[in-house]
Amino acid sequence: MPRYRLLIEYDGAGFVGWQRQDNGLGVQQVLEEAARRLDGRPVTAIAAGRTDAGVHALGQVAHLDLDRVIAGDKLRDALNFHTREHPVTVLAAAPVDDEFHARFSAVGRAYLYRILNRPAAPALDAGRVWWLPGDLDAEAMHRAARALIGHHDFSTFRAAQCQARSPLKTLDRLDVRRVGQEIHVIAEARSFLHHQVRNMVGSLRLVGRGKWAEDGLAAALEARDRTAGGPTAPPQGLYLTRVDYP
Amino acid sequence: MPRYRLLIEYDGAGFVGWQRQDNGLGVQQVLEEAARRLDGRPVTAIAAGRTDAGVHALGQVAHLDLDRVIAGDKLRDALNFHTREHPVTVLAAAPVDDEFHARFSAVGRAYLYRILNRPAAPALDAGRVWWLPGDLDAEAMHRAARALIGHHDFSTFRAAQCQARSPLKTLDRLDVRRVGQEIHVIAEARSFLHHQVRNMVGSLRLVGRGKWAEDGLAAALEARDRTAGGPTAPPQGLYLTRVDYP
Repeated sequence: MPRYRLLIEYDGAGFVGWQRQDNGLGVQQVLEEAARRLDGRPVTAIAAGRTDAGVHALGQVAHLDLDRVIAGDKLRDALNFHTREHPVTVLAAAPVDDEFHARFSAVGRAYLYRILNRPAAPALDAGRVWWLPGDLDAEAMHRAARALIGHHDFSTFRAAQCQARSPLKTLDRLDVRRVGQEIHVIAEARSFLHHQVRNMVGSLRLVGRGKWAEDGLAAALEARDRTAGGPTAPPQGLYLTRVDYP
Repeated sequence: MPRYRLLIEYDGAGFVGWQRQDNGLGVQQVLEEAARRLDGRPVTAIAAGRTDAGVHALGQVAHLDLDRVIAGDKLRDALNFHTREHPVTVLAAAPVDDEFHARFSAVGRAYLYRILNRPAAPALDAGRVWWLPGDLDAEAMHRAARALIGHHDFSTFRAAQCQARSPLKTLDRLDVRRVGQEIHVIAEARSFLHHQVRNMVGSLRLVGRGKWAEDGLAAALEARDRTAGGPTAPPQGLYLTRVDYP
């Protein structure tokens, strides 16, 4: 059966997350039902990152197997026809080798976390940013974030329900920069623990507020204990922006 | 009574436009009701641009008179407390001279029109852009737009229901440029006729598609007849970005 790779954008607001669940609609279900209408039989879609409820994607990658052989552009348009009632859109589709696996073949994942740092709440970007009015020192956050780069035990930033075998991960990038009225946190790694980006952002906020010293992040990491980390940042500021393959 | 100037952002999607109307909620009403709760008596808000249903604002300006004297930041926060259930936010508020009139004192207005030009429909920007898949020559659109710059009779781009006394306007800027997957049209003038920007964008689309030659816009302008223009572009791509005062 021919395998296809999809590049996907979605607004996470109305979904229980990527994965199919009993308590609401998952992005996976929207795509699988679109593919089923196309292929006439149940189809499973596997994604690179199983984003949580409310988390957005600008560049999620998934794969699925179809009975039929179809050109990438035609598959993209046909899937989009069936997903059109939902804020899920296939940006690109292409046939790939049977060996390709969206999750296990991925060698890198990039996330963007958007903080809106201004006195007024967002109107146009409601549900798309974490609104934090008041002083927030982006440069201090960036300096503090240096401590997390590299190969570490990230237990402090790991959700209780995380299913990864090990808390050891290598963080390749954690940049914090001011972009107009927003503060962007960019995180890149081969893979992340559950809630890792949101937990890191929640701790960075404490540094930005001056509640933690700049070395507070290093101390929290060292503790290897979730209770040593800051609160989890809300999902609506998080975007899966890119997945890398060899 | 002290007069205050407000800088306002809103998502036009759920509104019948700026103005109060019987058939739905206007942005004006949301602000006036917020001000009424603050001041304890009916308040009228006057805006620089009476945007249509579905049109957004990043920098609308309005003024209103209150009984009470209140610092700008406090007024901003108090109004935002009362508008919080709606996608309307006051970015800034400041006391102004009684002579200030948001509409009649304005000497310039700037609009941005966002076209999403890619095969896939928008997921995150649904309701925020005009989705036009397929070839669209932004450079040809920009060259064609040169013909509209200056002082002209804009009857070709004027809505039938326009209440302006004269179709003569001076267009200061009409730039078309590609920004990633989007095409941005930026229009600036002292003031615009009703639907003028959307009607100009609708005609520019015909040039971009190759349905009109590049001099088609000049010919349409010359005709001084709405039926010589292209169809009206939809409201969701339009943003009032800035209002200028002396």
